[in-house]
Amino acid sequence: MKVLVIGAAGMVGKKLIQRLLDGNSPVHPLSELILYDIIDAEKPFAKIPVKIFSGDISKADQAKILASEKPAIIYHLASIVSGEAEEKFNKGWHTNAHGSWNLLEELRVISEESEGEYKPKIIFTSSIAVFGAPFPDKIGDEFLCAPQTSYGAQKAITEMLISDYSRKGFIDGISIRLPTICVRPGKPNLAASGFFSGIIREPLNNMEAILPVSDQVRHWHASPRSATHFLTHAGTMDLKKLESRRSLNMPGVSCTVEEQIDALRKVAGNEVIAKIKHKTDHKITKIVDGWPRDFDPVRATTLGFKSENTFEEIIKVYLSDDFEK
Amino acid sequence: MKVLVIGAAGMVGKKLIQRLLDGNSPVHPLSELILYDIIDAEKPFAKIPVKIFSGDISKADQAKILASEKPAIIYHLASIVSGEAEEKFNKGWHTNAHGSWNLLEELRVISEESEGEYKPKIIFTSSIAVFGAPFPDKIGDEFLCAPQTSYGAQKAITEMLISDYSRKGFIDGISIRLPTICVRPGKPNLAASGFFSGIIREPLNNMEAILPVSDQVRHWHASPRSATHFLTHAGTMDLKKLESRRSLNMPGVSCTVEEQIDALRKVAGNEVIAKIKHKTDHKITKIVDGWPRDFDPVRATTLGFKSENTFEEIIKVYLSDDFEK
Repeated sequence: MKVLVIGAAGMVGKKLIQRLLDGNSPVHPLSELILYDIIDAEKPFAKIPVKIFSGDISKADQAKILASEKPAIIYHLASIVSGEAEEKFNKGWHTNAHGSWNLLEELRVISEESEGEYKPKIIFTSSIAVFGAPFPDKIGDEFLCAPQTSYGAQKAITEMLISDYSRKGFIDGISIRLPTICVRPGKPNLAASGFFSGIIREPLNNMEAILPVSDQVRHWHASPRSATHFLTHAGTMDLKKLESRRSLNMPGVSCTVEEQIDALRKVAGNEVIAKIKHKTDHKITKIVDGWPRDFDPVRATTLGFKSENTFEEIIKVYLSDDFEK
Repeated sequence: MKVLVIGAAGMVGKKLIQRLLDGNSPVHPLSELILYDIIDAEKPFAKIPVKIFSGDISKADQAKILASEKPAIIYHLASIVSGEAEEKFNKGWHTNAHGSWNLLEELRVISEESEGEYKPKIIFTSSIAVFGAPFPDKIGDEFLCAPQTSYGAQKAITEMLISDYSRKGFIDGISIRLPTICVRPGKPNLAASGFFSGIIREPLNNMEAILPVSDQVRHWHASPRSATHFLTHAGTMDLKKLESRRSLNMPGVSCTVEEQIDALRKVAGNEVIAKIKHKTDHKITKIVDGWPRDFDPVRATTLGFKSENTFEEIIKVYLSDDFEK
């Protein structure tokens, strides 16, 4: 089975590739792995052929190249992050929406040429940014998409495309609405949600962290390990079970920033907490104010998707998987 | 005030133009009317300048031409209808989604060049086809979009674009989710919903009508006169009132086909009813099965949008506005 990962150089992409190649992955047997991103992904250690190349997915020729590989499974993880898509309107729309659309169009052409014999499974990482305030206490599976960022609108549109192309039988797709993935290893990125990881990661690494919003902000989190599980689980499940609704809210942990900090105190002590400095950023506050706080992800849970149950567990996953002493 | 009507040769377009020019329209003062469609619209009687031209809105140069007119209000009513968009995948997507997107892009460019001074009001006719089964008894204002036709997906995507371009301040937009407009005057079109009008219009005109679905099918209707009111009301209202959600479910009448036929019997008698022949069409049945049955359009009602209260009223509007003895 040939698997293509678009967005292979990103954090979730790297984790996914590691999992796909760890000898124990539920997505098997792999015959070839194709890694694509705006920059060349790191070459992983692998017993199967791995093809690595890079390009700009917003360009139409790239979609043609990727589709011509005829992968059986396509993980589409690539996107301009929320903060950048808000700043650079054109770039966000071209990459996050037109890029996905071009890819689906090329896959449709190949599917039609093969008279339906070729029908790739596409697993798209959408986001809870498809939702916008005002919210109910818990967002249910039938709550409307009303994004309040361009990033969220681009994700919602790609979801719509994936649903319709799947309904018509050109592809077999699923959109996974990821919680904010936390604790992200490595350096901060331009995502407006970056501080949710920063306030845990930086103090644990003996660095100062800026908290740009009120500690009463409640949000929805899952670990990178859970994200990888969501993706491999989607890669093995029978997507017919989704029936006519191919976008799924993933499970996660709902907590306030204060509760995040309390969990960090429990795990690492008061000295570590002291590294968090509160400095309000109104632009980030405005974006985050429009974000979801809590979910009731009944469908995903019923379909076997799992996450952590407490934020403490999320911190422990970071310490176990990514923390370097 | 310069007003552009895209889709000016269609049924709703014609009714809207008539209303805009009837000397009593709430949308005033009009300085110029621009009528655009795939074919030249009929020249209306008017005391103000009327420009009429035609083209294919899916072509990028057309969007540029339309935007360069800098209309203050744009009524965007044009689309490939549901049945045709289902048959012709490419044509549907190009016209209904890319066509709208091109237009918004051209308007954005002009808006940015004018440093925000030019910010047209866009009134887009979306559809209840953005919803897909399974449904609650009544669809509320926060129910998810899960279209089960390409037409519905194209409408939902255009809604998303209009919301995001409005949020960014390039345009001031609203998406009006029309009920099925009934009774349509004139000849049948390719819309899968066409029979809802046909079973009333044809018998009243002493012609046979085919009912392709069960008479237990429940659906959501409003008259062409209500559609015109929705559009002129949107044209005069302060769209800031929509806050962060720019798509609105319009009010209408929920009834079964059996109730439609009963209303026709009351208005026109048993002889007329006898002209309706039941002949199941599985393709239309399948499409219509995925359509909404009833709504609770609280937001639209609160904002002053009104429709008929019974299907009998809807038939009487047809007899008064469109029936030719």
